[in-house]
Amino acid sequence: MNDTHSSSEIESAPLQTVHVNLGSRSYDIAIGRGILQQTGERIAALNPGARLAVITDETVAKLHLDALSSSLSASGLGHVCLKIPAGETSKRFEIFERLCDEVLEARLERGDIVLALGGGVVGDLAGFVAACVRRGMSFIQVPTTLLAQVDSSVGGKTGINSRHGKNLLGAFYQPDLVLADTAILDTLQLRDFRAGYAEVAKYGLLGDEPFFTWLEANWKAVFAGGPERDEAVARSCQAKADVVAEDEHEAGRRALLNLGHTFGHALESVVSYETERLVHGEGVSIGMMLAHEFSHKLGLLSEPDMHRVKSHLSEVGLPTRISDIPGQMPPAETLMDIIAQDKKVSRGNLTFILTRGIGQAFVEKGVDPALVQDFLTEKLAQ
Amino acid sequence: MNDTHSSSEIESAPLQTVHVNLGSRSYDIAIGRGILQQTGERIAALNPGARLAVITDETVAKLHLDALSSSLSASGLGHVCLKIPAGETSKRFEIFERLCDEVLEARLERGDIVLALGGGVVGDLAGFVAACVRRGMSFIQVPTTLLAQVDSSVGGKTGINSRHGKNLLGAFYQPDLVLADTAILDTLQLRDFRAGYAEVAKYGLLGDEPFFTWLEANWKAVFAGGPERDEAVARSCQAKADVVAEDEHEAGRRALLNLGHTFGHALESVVSYETERLVHGEGVSIGMMLAHEFSHKLGLLSEPDMHRVKSHLSEVGLPTRISDIPGQMPPAETLMDIIAQDKKVSRGNLTFILTRGIGQAFVEKGVDPALVQDFLTEKLAQ
Repeated sequence: MNDTHSSSEIESAPLQTVHVNLGSRSYDIAIGRGILQQTGERIAALNPGARLAVITDETVAKLHLDALSSSLSASGLGHVCLKIPAGETSKRFEIFERLCDEVLEARLERGDIVLALGGGVVGDLAGFVAACVRRGMSFIQVPTTLLAQVDSSVGGKTGINSRHGKNLLGAFYQPDLVLADTAILDTLQLRDFRAGYAEVAKYGLLGDEPFFTWLEANWKAVFAGGPERDEAVARSCQAKADVVAEDEHEAGRRALLNLGHTFGHALESVVSYETERLVHGEGVSIGMMLAHEFSHKLGLLSEPDMHRVKSHLSEVGLPTRISDIPGQMPPAETLMDIIAQDKKVSRGNLTFILTRGIGQAFVEKGVDPALVQDFLTEKLAQ
Repeated sequence: MNDTHSSSEIESAPLQTVHVNLGSRSYDIAIGRGILQQTGERIAALNPGARLAVITDETVAKLHLDALSSSLSASGLGHVCLKIPAGETSKRFEIFERLCDEVLEARLERGDIVLALGGGVVGDLAGFVAACVRRGMSFIQVPTTLLAQVDSSVGGKTGINSRHGKNLLGAFYQPDLVLADTAILDTLQLRDFRAGYAEVAKYGLLGDEPFFTWLEANWKAVFAGGPERDEAVARSCQAKADVVAEDEHEAGRRALLNLGHTFGHALESVVSYETERLVHGEGVSIGMMLAHEFSHKLGLLSEPDMHRVKSHLSEVGLPTRISDIPGQMPPAETLMDIIAQDKKVSRGNLTFILTRGIGQAFVEKGVDPALVQDFLTEKLAQ
C-alpha cells in the first residue's frame, strides 16, 4: 500500500461492489484495498460540486484524515473536518447537537454531504446528523473497522444513546455510497479485528453454511489481509444487504441479524460497556455461542454443529464462554432483567434468534423466560 | 357541539376522509366536527393495545386535553401527557431532547404512539420526536389550528429551529393518522383563523382556479363553521396530498407549495418573528400578493387576475401590502440578504414560485436578484 494511487488505478484495482437494493434509496458498497485514496474522485463522479462535512474521531483522524482530505481536495471538493472524541461516550445528545450546529455553521446545503470516517460510533452519529440536518443531507460512509464495514455500513441504522439505553434515538437513514477500504483494517489492533470477525462469522451461522465452511478454511487469509479479506467483507455486506432489502425497518426477518445479540447486549450491559472487559464483537461471539448452546438444550441443534461453532470461534481467538470475561458476573436474574428491558422485547414476550443448524437460524417469539434463566444459571456456573 | 358524542355517531357524523397516497407510508386524514371525541376509538381500531405519549402545549391543554384524554381512557388506551410552553420558541433542541427523554421514561415501545395535539409548533416538534425515538414510533396528529389542519398535517415535514434558521433540523416523517376536528377551530382567535385561511386560498391560487372561485363565494361560511369549512379543509388537504404524493422529498413540484413563502419568510424574519406584528399566515398572504404582483411586473400575469387576488385576500381581512405590517421596515437590500440565505436557495440561484394566472403557479429557478430587489424597493415605497 502507498498513498500515491493514480486515477488510472480506479479501474484496475481489484474491487468488489455490493449493491444494496432499496428502491429509490439503493446504493453501492465499494470494497477493496486503497479505496480511501479514490474517495474524492468517486464522490465527484456521484455529486459534482458538493461540499462535505467530514466527521471523524481523534484516533482515526491521526491515521487516515490526511489521506482522505487530500483525496477530496485533489478532486476540488471543499470540506470541513469535524472531530469527536473516540469511543462510545460520544454517542450522546450533546455531541449530536454540536455536530448539527457545526454542519449548519459550515453553510452546507441539502444536496451537500456528511461523510463518516471511522468505526460504528462515528457512522451512527454522523448518519443521524445527516438524517436530521435540513431534514436529510447526502450521507457517505468510509468505515475504518471490520465491524463497521460488515455491519454498520449496511442497513441504515443511525443513532445515539440515551440514559435509558443504547441507540434509543436515531433514524433509519441510508447512505448514498459506502467506501470500504480493506487496507485500512491493517491499522486495527488484533483484538478489534477479531471482534469484527465475530459479525462476519455470524452471516455464515445465520443463513449461509457454505460461507461458514469457507471461513473455516480461509480465516487466516482474512486476518492476514489477502483477497480473502475483501471476499469476506463483500459476502458479509451482501448477506446483510439481502436481509435489509427484504425488511428495511426491522419488522420481521431482519431480526435474524440479532443472532447472538440478545445475550451479547446483556453481557455488555453487565460489564457497563467497559471495553477493557468486553467489546461488542466479543459479546456477540459469546452470545452466538450461547444461542447455539440454548438451541441445543431445546433439542433444536445437534451436538456436532454446536461443537463446530465453538471450535471455529475459539480457533480465531474469540471468547465463547461467559467465564472468558474477566471479573465477577452477577446472578442469572440480573441478566434476565436486562434481557427483559432490551428494546427488542415486544410487549412482554421474549424474542430470541435460535437455530436448527449451521446457517439455519430463525426468529422465535415467545420463548419461556424460565427456560432462559435456567440455561443462564447453568452457564454462569461453568 | 357537545362533549357527549356516543360511539354510534362515528358512522353518522358527516365526515370527509382524504387519503394521502405514499405507498407503504400512506395514511388517512379524517375531517369533521367532533372527531376529537372519537380519537380513542379510532386509535384503538388502528393499533389496539398501544400506549401513547400525548404532546401538547399549555394553551391547547386547557381547552382540549381533557376531552382527548377521556376519549383515550374510554377506549382503554394508556397514555402520558407531555406539555410544552406555547409558541415558536419551544421548537428548540433543549425541548426536543427533554421530550425524547420523557417518551423513553414512559417506557413506550416502537409500536406505541406519539400523538400531537396542537398547532404547527406542537406537530413539528412531536413529529420529530416520533421520528427519532427508537428510530421511529407511530405518529398521530390532532391538529388544532386551521393552519395545522391544512398545511402541517400533510406532507410529513417535522423539525425544530436552530440558531442558524427555522426548521433546519428535522425529518420527513409521515403520520399514521390525522384527525382534523373542525369544531376545534371555533376556539381560535379570528386573527389565527384568518392566517390559516391564507394557506387555504393558496391551494386555489397555486393550482385550482375552481376552488379559488368557490372560496370567493363561500368564505363566509368557511369562517362561520358550516359544512363549507369541512369542505375547504378537505380540498386543501387533498391538494397538498396530491402534490406531496408526487414529490415526497421536495425535489421538484412540491416547491409550488412555497407560493408566497419566500417573500413571506423574509418578512417574518425582518420582524424577528414577533407575532404581534406578523404571524406566518399573514406573511404568506402578503408574500402571495407580492408573488402575483412580481409575476405581473414580469409580464406573466394579467392585471385583472392580480386585482382578483388582492380583492379576495383583502375581503377576508388578510394583509396584502408590506405597509400593512406595523412598525418600520428595513431597506430592500436587507430583505434580499434574507432571501439569499433562505434554505430554498440552491447553490446561489434564486428560486421563486411565479404564476401565469389564478391556479397557474410554476417554479422558476434562476430569477435575476436585481429584478427582485427593484421590485421590493418599489413595494417598500408604497
